[in-house]
Amino acid sequence: MPSNEDSLIARYFRPLATDAGAFDLTDDAALIKSSADDIVVTTDAIVEGVHFLSDDPPDTVARKALRVNLSDLAAKGAVPAGFVLTLALRGADDAWLAPFARALGEDAASFRCPLLGGDTVSTPGPLTISITAFGRVLPGRMIRRAGAEPGDRVVVTGTIGDAALGLAFLKHDAMARALAADDAIKEMLVERYRIPQPRVALAQAVRDHATAAMDVSDGLAGDLAKLCAASGVSAIVNASTIPFSGALAMLIDQDYGVLELAVSGGDDYEILCTIPENRFEVFVQASKLAGVPVTSIGTIIAGSAAPRFIDAGGAEIVLPRLSYSHF
Amino acid sequence: MPSNEDSLIARYFRPLATDAGAFDLTDDAALIKSSADDIVVTTDAIVEGVHFLSDDPPDTVARKALRVNLSDLAAKGAVPAGFVLTLALRGADDAWLAPFARALGEDAASFRCPLLGGDTVSTPGPLTISITAFGRVLPGRMIRRAGAEPGDRVVVTGTIGDAALGLAFLKHDAMARALAADDAIKEMLVERYRIPQPRVALAQAVRDHATAAMDVSDGLAGDLAKLCAASGVSAIVNASTIPFSGALAMLIDQDYGVLELAVSGGDDYEILCTIPENRFEVFVQASKLAGVPVTSIGTIIAGSAAPRFIDAGGAEIVLPRLSYSHF
Repeated sequence: MPSNEDSLIARYFRPLATDAGAFDLTDDAALIKSSADDIVVTTDAIVEGVHFLSDDPPDTVARKALRVNLSDLAAKGAVPAGFVLTLALRGADDAWLAPFARALGEDAASFRCPLLGGDTVSTPGPLTISITAFGRVLPGRMIRRAGAEPGDRVVVTGTIGDAALGLAFLKHDAMARALAADDAIKEMLVERYRIPQPRVALAQAVRDHATAAMDVSDGLAGDLAKLCAASGVSAIVNASTIPFSGALAMLIDQDYGVLELAVSGGDDYEILCTIPENRFEVFVQASKLAGVPVTSIGTIIAGSAAPRFIDAGGAEIVLPRLSYSHF
Repeated sequence: MPSNEDSLIARYFRPLATDAGAFDLTDDAALIKSSADDIVVTTDAIVEGVHFLSDDPPDTVARKALRVNLSDLAAKGAVPAGFVLTLALRGADDAWLAPFARALGEDAASFRCPLLGGDTVSTPGPLTISITAFGRVLPGRMIRRAGAEPGDRVVVTGTIGDAALGLAFLKHDAMARALAADDAIKEMLVERYRIPQPRVALAQAVRDHATAAMDVSDGLAGDLAKLCAASGVSAIVNASTIPFSGALAMLIDQDYGVLELAVSGGDDYEILCTIPENRFEVFVQASKLAGVPVTSIGTIIAGSAAPRFIDAGGAEIVLPRLSYSHF
């Protein structure tokens, strides 16, 4: 006589538990087999109305919940090993759970990060999804925020700011409403907000070459400040070299406030890392092999000041609000 | 320029991050060093208004959040290694956070299960605490729900049902209001609900002697049914041998419904395990050394029927509602 909770787990989540250590989700705990690797552990929660919107499609919510964790693992140089899921639901709504679980399973399979276990609880409040993900890395080789050295290049993957603008469009904020952008561009930016592309393919190159790394989740400026603080260094960023999508570049031309939002807005889930000058070319080659675009945007310098952003004319850009904080 | 979120983490949670693998909570991920042990992973979330009450003291909420996970680890025969914490808060309320973090730190220290990392997010909804805890166990020696064999003794630790009655008193439910019990008894039962006593000390005896084990969180009857289903067996329980506290025995005498609530109510966080007859005496000795009372309450039998509960006269006790389900 299984309870509804057990049926829900059996129906939607057991198919995702493909690893032997998950015991088909019929036990109280999962097992990560002993190995020569260190286990990297990261945890991220997303809350309806805070990290995703109530009317976001459930498949995008599932992908975002897992991918924000995969992004952390990649930035640490770790290869995904599995995850556990805590789901706080208002009820067991099949119309929501079915596409959620299907998309989660697709991502778990394509990123080779199987579901190991979890907990499903009821809540009278917003849907809340908490994922703890595990990765493997050679002993002692996890790449930390600490480790950047003066002279290292500051490097980011992909493009910055698309997701922050996507969210601005979804929220119909004042600046977004004033921008001239066709629906295809808005859709692309919203998609960037809803479905991050974790740079799992770059994990090995990060592990082999980066002195420090983290993923950009709370805004490039604020996250670089955190990396510098952890490393005991400062940085100078040439804002004109920050990689923006064509769509974003066009919007920055319309309103300079878009630039500020782009570098402080967050939700990029790109990798920010520091690469010694003498390894930069090798890192670029490895990135090409991995199919991940990388761009050098600045240099680590000695000091303890917050990183400075300089425009093409050499003037400092003042960013009043460095990054997103929950409180 | 740390954000409020960073300050909150630094102030309340960094002192708990005593393990080197936590990197003082200044990184995006934590590290569990490679070792010869398997890593046991368990995750449990508690939601305000569902698993704890809004006016529960914050120190008891902290202890419960961690201890329900420690209880899982102990039942799997694992030694605690650390945990990650996801905290979804309506705001940064020092009056709540300070005692919460202090109690969490005390438990982390006394159970030798340090904080490794986490995520702190804002929510407009109920306070939600999700913990994923890690334990170490000799390779291949995690005790599962599967593994019970006909003839094994069914054993539970401590006493059953106190927490369920404690919750009934807190909720002022109809049956609880009709019971004659003085305030000291009510307080003892409420304390049993609020602060589980995870049987961490018994982990090694469980690992050495049990064929199957789990902790009793959703009610003895329902949890035994789960263990039996996972093991492909059935069981007969002599209800008159189920260990009840003196207070609970007195309340059962007043209202037989108390017995039903005790075995189906949950929140016991005792260990339920099966021990082969020829190991039972050794297990009892090991339990005494560990200081954990254990009681044999029945026998595993062949079959696939739900476990049967028999009273002292040999008649079957019908339990209409086996255990708690969230949906």
